Amino acid sequence: MTGSVTIVGLGPGNEAMVTPEVRDALAQATDVVGYIPYVARVAPREGLTLHASDNRVEIDRSRHALEMAAAGGRVVVVSSGDPGVFAMASAVFEALEAGPRGWRGLDIRVLPGITAMLAAAAAAGAPLGHDFCTINLSDNLKPWALIEKRLRLAAEADFAMAFYNPRSASRPEGFVRTLEVLREACGDARPILFARAVSTPDQVLKIVPLTEATPEMADMRTMVIVGSSATRIIETPRGLILYTPRSA
Amino acid sequence: MTGSVTIVGLGPGNEAMVTPEVRDALAQATDVVGYIPYVARVAPREGLTLHASDNRVEIDRSRHALEMAAAGGRVVVVSSGDPGVFAMASAVFEALEAGPRGWRGLDIRVLPGITAMLAAAAAAGAPLGHDFCTINLSDNLKPWALIEKRLRLAAEADFAMAFYNPRSASRPEGFVRTLEVLREACGDARPILFARAVSTPDQVLKIVPLTEATPEMADMRTMVIVGSSATRIIETPRGLILYTPRSA
Repeated sequence: MTGSVTIVGLGPGNEAMVTPEVRDALAQATDVVGYIPYVARVAPREGLTLHASDNRVEIDRSRHALEMAAAGGRVVVVSSGDPGVFAMASAVFEALEAGPRGWRGLDIRVLPGITAMLAAAAAAGAPLGHDFCTINLSDNLKPWALIEKRLRLAAEADFAMAFYNPRSASRPEGFVRTLEVLREACGDARPILFARAVSTPDQVLKIVPLTEATPEMADMRTMVIVGSSATRIIETPRGLILYTPRSA
Repeated sequence: MTGSVTIVGLGPGNEAMVTPEVRDALAQATDVVGYIPYVARVAPREGLTLHASDNRVEIDRSRHALEMAAAGGRVVVVSSGDPGVFAMASAVFEALEAGPRGWRGLDIRVLPGITAMLAAAAAAGAPLGHDFCTINLSDNLKPWALIEKRLRLAAEADFAMAFYNPRSASRPEGFVRTLEVLREACGDARPILFARAVSTPDQVLKIVPLTEATPEMADMRTMVIVGSSATRIIETPRGLILYTPRSA
């Protein structure tokens, strides 16, 4: 078996944020596998087959990638952002662990990318400049009670918090509850950032006090970052800068 | 005032992880400011002045960058990794907030980079594949009691944990205590990753159970990642893969 699976991060959308090593992996791939909008970011060329699939079939897609590699392909699995943060790397390893023993001999690598929370933080200033936590608010794969427990403990620890998948159209109530829990647990008007379509031409940033945040400010293309108690706002003629000092 | 300050991340060391937008900012800079080993990564050229300074002078360096921009320079402040994660972005905003009001009219941007924890996670598999927290273990700028409180709450929340600056030569006792707290709070043999000099030719990865971790396994060039209770190890002919499933 000489095939390989390389799981790469395309960053949050801006092509100037794609690392050279990821570009190189794509240039050498025989097959690219991923969710439709991410595969659409890869230019077609001779010798490359694009395999786009729908959302929520991550394990099938991972198995397919491993099978093609076992047959000798140089397979690249694309994620947006970083593949190791709520993205395809864990799914590929779940499929690897559950799959045929022979797959473990494959050359499997993960190439990091600019994850959405760091692009959102950079666009707004440096709200993750001190200790923070990163939580996937989707309750597709874990119970809501665990999410709520983590939110309360994170507030007690006074972490800044970054939320992925804050609000889906099918289950909007989770983010309503998130804002309630945060208002109770933080008990102040600390700033919250809604960063939509970060790094793309559609980017919109909104910074409001937690007390004024509404569920409609987030959708599935929005990264949400809540400051710690030390997070500060600087007003400038160019807009607000949100940052957490180094001593927080 | 037409000058600018662009705070960029050079990634963890591998030049193939530097994003094109960061390369572009460096190509257009009149001045590059930063800690000696990071400035050493920027190629000298005509029209560019390199200003390398020692560690622990982050505020002086930030003020210098803002002053040069106020005088019309296109100043780039370099950090390793991502500038917004325990790096120069917060220091620049601290200096901006405390400085002359006129500085607020400057064009100040942050360009994200591949931060060490994501490069380390990618090199080992996907240990940060589900909810996690990120803690700076240096007690230079915050009391040790706060670090210990965050460690205990993070363990209770069952976050995977990424630690920056785990162990300095001058204060090695902090990491000794960190391992004691984690053994108490986690109460099991969950895996811990020591990733030294990640992405460079000197890279060394070590994965051991928490019960067998020793303080000497870390130094200031080491990223430490502790799994959640759900983090798993896959044994392969090419080495261990460490990952956290998507449902953790």
